[in-house]
Amino acid sequence: MWKASVISLYPDAFPGVLGVGVLGRALADGLWSLDTLNPRDIADDKHRTVDDTPAGGGPGMVMRADVLARTIDALGDETRPRLLLSPRGRPFTQTRAHELAQGPGAVFVCGRFEGVDERVIAARNLEEVSIGDFVLAGGEVAAQALIEACVRLIPGVLGAPSSRAEESFEQGLLEYPQYTRPRDFEGASIPEVLLSGDHKKIAAWRREEALKLTRARRPDLLSDGNGGVQSGDKEKDGSPS
Amino acid sequence: MWKASVISLYPDAFPGVLGVGVLGRALADGLWSLDTLNPRDIADDKHRTVDDTPAGGGPGMVMRADVLARTIDALGDETRPRLLLSPRGRPFTQTRAHELAQGPGAVFVCGRFEGVDERVIAARNLEEVSIGDFVLAGGEVAAQALIEACVRLIPGVLGAPSSRAEESFEQGLLEYPQYTRPRDFEGASIPEVLLSGDHKKIAAWRREEALKLTRARRPDLLSDGNGGVQSGDKEKDGSPS
Repeated sequence: MWKASVISLYPDAFPGVLGVGVLGRALADGLWSLDTLNPRDIADDKHRTVDDTPAGGGPGMVMRADVLARTIDALGDETRPRLLLSPRGRPFTQTRAHELAQGPGAVFVCGRFEGVDERVIAARNLEEVSIGDFVLAGGEVAAQALIEACVRLIPGVLGAPSSRAEESFEQGLLEYPQYTRPRDFEGASIPEVLLSGDHKKIAAWRREEALKLTRARRPDLLSDGNGGVQSGDKEKDGSPS
Repeated sequence: MWKASVISLYPDAFPGVLGVGVLGRALADGLWSLDTLNPRDIADDKHRTVDDTPAGGGPGMVMRADVLARTIDALGDETRPRLLLSPRGRPFTQTRAHELAQGPGAVFVCGRFEGVDERVIAARNLEEVSIGDFVLAGGEVAAQALIEACVRLIPGVLGAPSSRAEESFEQGLLEYPQYTRPRDFEGASIPEVLLSGDHKKIAAWRREEALKLTRARRPDLLSDGNGGVQSGDKEKDGSPS
């Protein structure tokens, strides 16, 4: 079973969004597991201190290396990768989500305050990852996003296996526009080609629309060709509703 | 008061992570507000249908334009920007977080399934935004990340006003490494310069470290110079703990 362990000063934030929908069902069904560990429970002084002022000055507080290391060590012998959520990290990609989903799980370390003491990053081999070029109040919501991206790739979590094929077809391109009933919505109709029944034409149209959209919004995806985005689907819930 | 309205099939996912820490305190103190609206409560057929099969074929289901439009309209006359969370969207940035934080709030539309009918995006002027190049099960966790990024910029939410200055100083660079007590951690010590008390030297060292890190991990930030990342701080909780 794929196992997510989260180190956070706010264990109450979990499962949060991970407890609903397809992820929540899979959690209840035992397809993956989630546990949390609070550094404050590990801190051994009477004030349960987890942070201190930055060496060299500056605003705010820094999470202590020793308390965080002891918290990580409390998980025992570990083969799982350990991720530190941080705007300093390398951008998380769909490729990394696939790699993690194929492994035994991962440990997610959530920083708060000004970040964590640099020394624990090397000492406990933390991989710094970022979900985007903006600043959060803490790593918790970023950890939830990463866990969601990984867990939905675990076999059995999503309904339809055909969805995966669609995803890899779309590799490196933004998704083509989608339409559904009603045929007329406020005077706007569904593009004729989608109602033609001509599957070859439909596939060509979708490919062209995906290319147009990617060129307009994310030319970087076309130039670097790293296939970072596989946005063929947002949810394979598999449950018509 | 800054007002976040979330349109989601999973209102139980809220406030989730937004209910803890500095964001949760600010919510309780009335510095911002959060409400949710479920398209399923708006759907008027007996099955409360919110989605249908994709026109032109393909796996999964697409959220209906009419039901989603009626849900958006149920919010009444609106001046707030409406964001649709989607991997097709433009990457969300710290600059956009600042813009939104200065306004009256925002409406966050969370897609599930294969996405939403394209026609509602134009008809209701939805701004498609993405938090990263990976695929989620739904827009909910992305909405929470955006709300967190915005709300922490609202005056009064974070403790120390000095933190903001630090943030703009750091503009366009990843954060320099932080250290705190103890002075020795498993044989690794705090860099001498940070203990020197020489503030000029400390500032120069931090700048150089930030540049080195940015060059190694995010050369794109140095070349495009758009200042997308302002990662001087992860949390200005303002509360030593």
